Amino acid sequence: MARQPEFEHSKKAFGWAARDTSGVLSPFNFSRRKTGEKDVTFKVLYCGICHSDLHKAKNDWGTTHYPLVPGHEVVGIVTEVGSKVRKFKIGDRVGVGCLVDSCQSCENCANNLENYCPQFTLTDGSKNSDGTTTYGGYSDSMVSDEHFVFNIPDVLPLDVAAPLLCAGITVYSPLRYFGLDKPGLHIGVAGLGGLGHMAVKFAKAFGAYVTVISTSPYKQNEAIQHLGADSFLISRDQDQTKVAMGSLDGIIDTISADHPLLPLIGLLKSHGKLVMVGAPEKPLELHVFPLLAGRKIVAGSLIGGIKETQEMIDFAAQNNVKPDIEVIPIDYVNTAMDRLAKADVKYRFVIDIGNTLKPTS
Amino acid sequence: MARQPEFEHSKKAFGWAARDTSGVLSPFNFSRRKTGEKDVTFKVLYCGICHSDLHKAKNDWGTTHYPLVPGHEVVGIVTEVGSKVRKFKIGDRVGVGCLVDSCQSCENCANNLENYCPQFTLTDGSKNSDGTTTYGGYSDSMVSDEHFVFNIPDVLPLDVAAPLLCAGITVYSPLRYFGLDKPGLHIGVAGLGGLGHMAVKFAKAFGAYVTVISTSPYKQNEAIQHLGADSFLISRDQDQTKVAMGSLDGIIDTISADHPLLPLIGLLKSHGKLVMVGAPEKPLELHVFPLLAGRKIVAGSLIGGIKETQEMIDFAAQNNVKPDIEVIPIDYVNTAMDRLAKADVKYRFVIDIGNTLKPTS
Repeated sequence: MARQPEFEHSKKAFGWAARDTSGVLSPFNFSRRKTGEKDVTFKVLYCGICHSDLHKAKNDWGTTHYPLVPGHEVVGIVTEVGSKVRKFKIGDRVGVGCLVDSCQSCENCANNLENYCPQFTLTDGSKNSDGTTTYGGYSDSMVSDEHFVFNIPDVLPLDVAAPLLCAGITVYSPLRYFGLDKPGLHIGVAGLGGLGHMAVKFAKAFGAYVTVISTSPYKQNEAIQHLGADSFLISRDQDQTKVAMGSLDGIIDTISADHPLLPLIGLLKSHGKLVMVGAPEKPLELHVFPLLAGRKIVAGSLIGGIKETQEMIDFAAQNNVKPDIEVIPIDYVNTAMDRLAKADVKYRFVIDIGNTLKPTS
Repeated sequence: MARQPEFEHSKKAFGWAARDTSGVLSPFNFSRRKTGEKDVTFKVLYCGICHSDLHKAKNDWGTTHYPLVPGHEVVGIVTEVGSKVRKFKIGDRVGVGCLVDSCQSCENCANNLENYCPQFTLTDGSKNSDGTTTYGGYSDSMVSDEHFVFNIPDVLPLDVAAPLLCAGITVYSPLRYFGLDKPGLHIGVAGLGGLGHMAVKFAKAFGAYVTVISTSPYKQNEAIQHLGADSFLISRDQDQTKVAMGSLDGIIDTISADHPLLPLIGLLKSHGKLVMVGAPEKPLELHVFPLLAGRKIVAGSLIGGIKETQEMIDFAAQNNVKPDIEVIPIDYVNTAMDRLAKADVKYRFVIDIGNTLKPTS
């Protein structure tokens, strides 16, 4: 019989967990393993709220095991390192993203693509190789093999750095892999939420001419004046989309709701690439002839590998690419989830764990 | 008012045309332009029957203007060349494929990708820049700007060469462009008709391990023993597809009927590529999460550029890649169309124009 969360491991831990499909989070006592030879343990100071936290908390994907401590944009300060840890020392500014383990023996792992390892272990709500549960960053401490721990450069404030670890890498990786990182390219960003706003920032940092594609006209000023996009397109406006047909080298599609692909494919130049990073639950309609006629591609991409994530963090630090965040106390988290469900955030909630998470007596 | 086909141009021509949506072909008198400065005129000896000829003859796509002389796998012997023609002389063995013109000024034309020029002119059933109709290769003669004329090497029999000009390049081009031409790759070919059998042959010539994916178990022996495929998979057999999950680097999908993409995407390794060269009329269902989870691609590809088509012909000649054909007389063409509709051909009908097309008195 599985042990209770408080007694699975030797170190006490504390966080907030969802207990059922209401998704409501509340204080939760659990435990973490002691620092192994290759482990880094750190005190969590901030954790971003990803839209997937909301889906998981409510079991929208049918894969959630309760209690669930969400959080995979986790940053803090190292408190302990194992005897064989080489990259980190106590006091370092570090982070953990979506993954805390992978098989490290498959072809993808060998190619620094742990994110495509068939046996990767998610930071929150997954199972460790010993069968124990992984608990995410809505908690006071984290422990992970150092391979999955990132260095956060000093120029990046820790709260600002947190959303890079999922939202940032999710859009950075496909821009790189699909060759959409060349100066002068015309890049579209479909959807302007946590992922979309990071796609605009990274594409601009790569030197692209960036078009935000949205269903919400009221986002135009924000996209152009605040985020620095070069143009804005209402996806339902047939006149606008007609004028822009065949104008984009690539589109990062961050929309996770059902939506038509045909207008997006139409916006691509010949040989253009539509890369999906959101995961609509139901299948989308794919019109094949427009793909053929322009040798176009529809692709998917899922977060990024560990090496590339560190490169992305360093690139963000060097190029002043910073997520726009709203820092909240932990006891605001349920309200934040409600607001997130209504897309009422610019553009990422980050929980101030260090100052607001208090253990129950 | 448009002139009658017989009097549009100064040179008499003769072929077989479809007159209405029955698609039935019958003898037809028309005309071709005289040989211009940069034109090559040739006596047609053979013409392949592409599945699209059948669709066009019956106006399945709603774009046909009757009378339609089909045929875009056209080969023969040069009878006349214009004063500025540099590449060809009288007596040369030549061919014309899907295209007889393009704008030659757009970015795609500048990159030898005339097949993606928004203003290309199809060999059959399209409009020349002067407004006259293009008539295809089910006819006694062809005339084309030399840019769109191919040299057929002596080692390739002309009848065998014909299907290379559409079926051949349609599968060769995506194998090259999407990097599926490296020795040792595992390549799937979905659908085993005119396009599919050429995909097997080219993939084998590139050194791939080739799996034919089909709904027809009776094709297994043929695929392996005759065409040289390495394995065969019944796409509806869940046990077979389960075993083969994640095993293919790429798939050339030649199926133009409605079909599920999900099992094909499942057969791909991470970072694998599903390239569609058939054009189902209705949109297909695209499940997004499997694309994300393996960074997979669904793409389209349409024939090939002129330079690449000549390279393909030369590659076929050097590597003994030869379409399997059934040579027929012109007065068998309606029966051949009926058989083609039932996929009853291994694998391409080629009309013996030179010996069987006789002008009406």
